[in-house]
Amino acid sequence: MMLTKARTRFIKSLKLKKIRIQEELFVIEGAKNVIELLKSNFLLHSLYSTTTFLDKNRVLVKNLNAQIFTATETQLADAGSFRTNNSVIALAKISESKPLSAGKDEFALILDDIHDPGNFGTIIRICDWYGISKVIASTDCVDLYNPKVIAATMGSFTRVHIYYTNLKEFMENEKGPFYGTYLEGESIHTIRFKSRGYIVVGNESTGISVEISALTDYRITIPGDGRMESLNAGIATAVLLDNLYRIQRRKN
Amino acid sequence: MMLTKARTRFIKSLKLKKIRIQEELFVIEGAKNVIELLKSNFLLHSLYSTTTFLDKNRVLVKNLNAQIFTATETQLADAGSFRTNNSVIALAKISESKPLSAGKDEFALILDDIHDPGNFGTIIRICDWYGISKVIASTDCVDLYNPKVIAATMGSFTRVHIYYTNLKEFMENEKGPFYGTYLEGESIHTIRFKSRGYIVVGNESTGISVEISALTDYRITIPGDGRMESLNAGIATAVLLDNLYRIQRRKN
Repeated sequence: MMLTKARTRFIKSLKLKKIRIQEELFVIEGAKNVIELLKSNFLLHSLYSTTTFLDKNRVLVKNLNAQIFTATETQLADAGSFRTNNSVIALAKISESKPLSAGKDEFALILDDIHDPGNFGTIIRICDWYGISKVIASTDCVDLYNPKVIAATMGSFTRVHIYYTNLKEFMENEKGPFYGTYLEGESIHTIRFKSRGYIVVGNESTGISVEISALTDYRITIPGDGRMESLNAGIATAVLLDNLYRIQRRKN
Repeated sequence: MMLTKARTRFIKSLKLKKIRIQEELFVIEGAKNVIELLKSNFLLHSLYSTTTFLDKNRVLVKNLNAQIFTATETQLADAGSFRTNNSVIALAKISESKPLSAGKDEFALILDDIHDPGNFGTIIRICDWYGISKVIASTDCVDLYNPKVIAATMGSFTRVHIYYTNLKEFMENEKGPFYGTYLEGESIHTIRFKSRGYIVVGNESTGISVEISALTDYRITIPGDGRMESLNAGIATAVLLDNLYRIQRRKN
């Protein structure tokens, strides 16, 4: 089938969180992301693709339990959120946000009020790199199913689980320790992390909120030369998780 | 004086590299970046600002050897490259790209073909965080004076020096060692870095070019869980420089 105008409007409407919740669907764009989606357990709803993409990925798209529509790159650019990366768009069923907690000998990430979709998606991608598969996000974080978040994850949204919840309640009821990241604290180069726990990353400009700070057990920081005021939240998370990974590996 | 339409056109024209070279001027936008500029050795050409910004930064703007124009946020948004962050725009004289090399007990960064302005600017910001003040960039890297690069540096362009050159010739004539970053190589968690040298970071999608790879001495890599194919160039640089910083500090 060909992509119709009504379908294009429907895909576009899913840019709004309200419509996504109502339809229980989200949009995945670009070859890399869609290929990861097709390999995952997410339920595919429909696929909109150039014939070139379908030819290239014949094995993957064979026996898909979903409607497949062919479209030109121009049509896909129109339906999607990005000017480039338009060989394919998929719609998939939103996966429910289920309670998560760090297991034995496991670290999970806590995100307090991360607004920027690019940062949020990048953080998920970094978690995937370092084998962190659980992220607990405050309800005021950007929506995982925002097309810009999904794009920035580069497919990692299929492997990293996100649980949106009231952080204060979560931390009050959950066993820590909670390592909060600040501009001052113990250096992540020398700290001895416990074998399990949570790393808390705060908002891009205001850091971890006062309420959440009160519930953290350790204040940790990224050492530097002291001329810059801060690092971007995505960058800071990468450096943190790299140190955690290095230290945990050395122990085992 | 008030910002005129002709001035606005002039500021806009500096988005083009050709015009920047001809006029030897570049554009700096936003309070954070402009304040860093005013504190630096860059030669200010002119300042376009809201009266609020001028009032707040009275000490900094006093005795400036440049023309000051007042404007509204809407006018500044129109003249600048960004929809937000519009309290001030400055024009400053382009600083010549001068030859650099790593000194004794010093590391410098080499960038091979970094195209994305956001990545390039972020990398400069990260260098500043870790006290790396010299970056050698291939001539096909994005221009430092691109407004998006300058914005992403968050003021670090005033402290980190960038030298654009033919990388092959530079590396042939310069004493190494050159540590090239790849998807496979020795882990940066365990490598013993020499006391001086260069870290080479390659293009966002294609990595370090074949020609430059032939001139690197060590292949280094960022260990991870192996499910993701790559990290963004900015993220990778942050993790690399963090490890270098940690290891060098431990030695001293």
